[in-house]
Amino acid sequence: MLNAEDGLWRRAPESVRTRIRDGLITGPTAGLAPGYVQGNLCILPQDLAADFLRFAQGNPKPCPLIGVSETGSPLVPALGKTIDLRRDLPRYRVWKDGELVAEPTDITEFWHDDLVAFVIGCSFSFEEALIEDGIPLRHVACGSNVAMYRTNISCQPAGRLAGPMVVSMRPLKPADAIRAIQITSRFPSVHGAPVHIGKPELIGIADIHKPDYGDPVEIREDELPVFWACGVTPQAVIAAARPAFAITHYPGSMLVTDIRNSRLAAL
Amino acid sequence: MLNAEDGLWRRAPESVRTRIRDGLITGPTAGLAPGYVQGNLCILPQDLAADFLRFAQGNPKPCPLIGVSETGSPLVPALGKTIDLRRDLPRYRVWKDGELVAEPTDITEFWHDDLVAFVIGCSFSFEEALIEDGIPLRHVACGSNVAMYRTNISCQPAGRLAGPMVVSMRPLKPADAIRAIQITSRFPSVHGAPVHIGKPELIGIADIHKPDYGDPVEIREDELPVFWACGVTPQAVIAAARPAFAITHYPGSMLVTDIRNSRLAAL
Repeated sequence: MLNAEDGLWRRAPESVRTRIRDGLITGPTAGLAPGYVQGNLCILPQDLAADFLRFAQGNPKPCPLIGVSETGSPLVPALGKTIDLRRDLPRYRVWKDGELVAEPTDITEFWHDDLVAFVIGCSFSFEEALIEDGIPLRHVACGSNVAMYRTNISCQPAGRLAGPMVVSMRPLKPADAIRAIQITSRFPSVHGAPVHIGKPELIGIADIHKPDYGDPVEIREDELPVFWACGVTPQAVIAAARPAFAITHYPGSMLVTDIRNSRLAAL
Repeated sequence: MLNAEDGLWRRAPESVRTRIRDGLITGPTAGLAPGYVQGNLCILPQDLAADFLRFAQGNPKPCPLIGVSETGSPLVPALGKTIDLRRDLPRYRVWKDGELVAEPTDITEFWHDDLVAFVIGCSFSFEEALIEDGIPLRHVACGSNVAMYRTNISCQPAGRLAGPMVVSMRPLKPADAIRAIQITSRFPSVHGAPVHIGKPELIGIADIHKPDYGDPVEIREDELPVFWACGVTPQAVIAAARPAFAITHYPGSMLVTDIRNSRLAAL
């Protein structure tokens, strides 16, 4: 249902980006432009770009690349002809030598010719497919962030980039877990099938009630914890590598693209 | 490797059936004609055939029909032009009023014009796909029967046919369980994806170490029990309905068809 508050602009990626660019949206993008892919952003100096590309190639589940800019270009036309990565996200994080130095809503002043931008698929796409199939997601119902954990699963290292895989966890009834495996298998470019199910201790999670990122979530007696590779992995790995300069999106403030979620389906 | 004992005849469905027809094989068909579909057999009087077809339609996971004969015909040319269901299985079970009355190797003398034959997909096909993917199956390694359990999941009833779903269980490591869900999802006509994973008590299994059919199997600390709908379900339902007359295959002595397992893949 549409009304003046919940306007048509919410439905179209370009009009969402225009409002962001105009400074009218500075918070989370969840729920905006439903049906369209949102992406994690990671901007690095060119000297780390080859390592990052090799890291993504070796770790497609936590680090599914859906777009890469030319060196020095803030454009990713494959994801949307009008996208300008310097202005089209609600908020950014700017890092120097691994330390957070600013959280601006526009990074035009930080941009320079040496940077390469990477856009990584985000679980919003597969969560939409799960919800459309009638599978309830508790963190969505609670309005909280998904629970995320560092695991003892090592990523394939690449040059200066190495570290453990981070996973997100959603508690599901067994039949829903099976269906969720089927559905997310169709979306390899947004983390794909889960990497683990049940038994958190087997992947090095000591206390399922204490996530390393995000919010804890109840797991009921008739549910299993289901674990997907998480887009926080590459950010954690980059933070550990302490590059001279980096820019990422602010958590929850994603790039809204012109690509329909259904177009990411492998079959 | 082939030798005189392990002859080429084992590889071709028609030569396997010829040896069965000639009385040279009267035992299990596991491992014969690798790569080809084997089927459960159920022969019923015509007056129960419509109920059985409706039961199969309503319960495709436990009862995936891959062939049906014309009334009075022991042929199923869609599964193999030379198949004669009266002689091509190693051993049968003949039932009168729900009681087992004979276990012959040939049912020519029991055949009559009122019978309809149903062939139901069998887990051998998906187990082959799992093994080819490198997923170990303990009951195969142990040379035992798969463990099977009556559950509290009710089948969709149809006329005189009703009852609980029977499931088979295979213990798998979590990552193998996820992969097994992907692989078996491709084979809807041989039971398809699992119906349950973990937590046996949620589907009414009181003691996982005491299967209702088949042999118990060890479940290790790093494994989850994974449950598939089982072809024993329709047999159990028919036994409960106590038809005046029925013939089934003898457990493990299946119909070897000319259909390649890969042809059952949905995608």
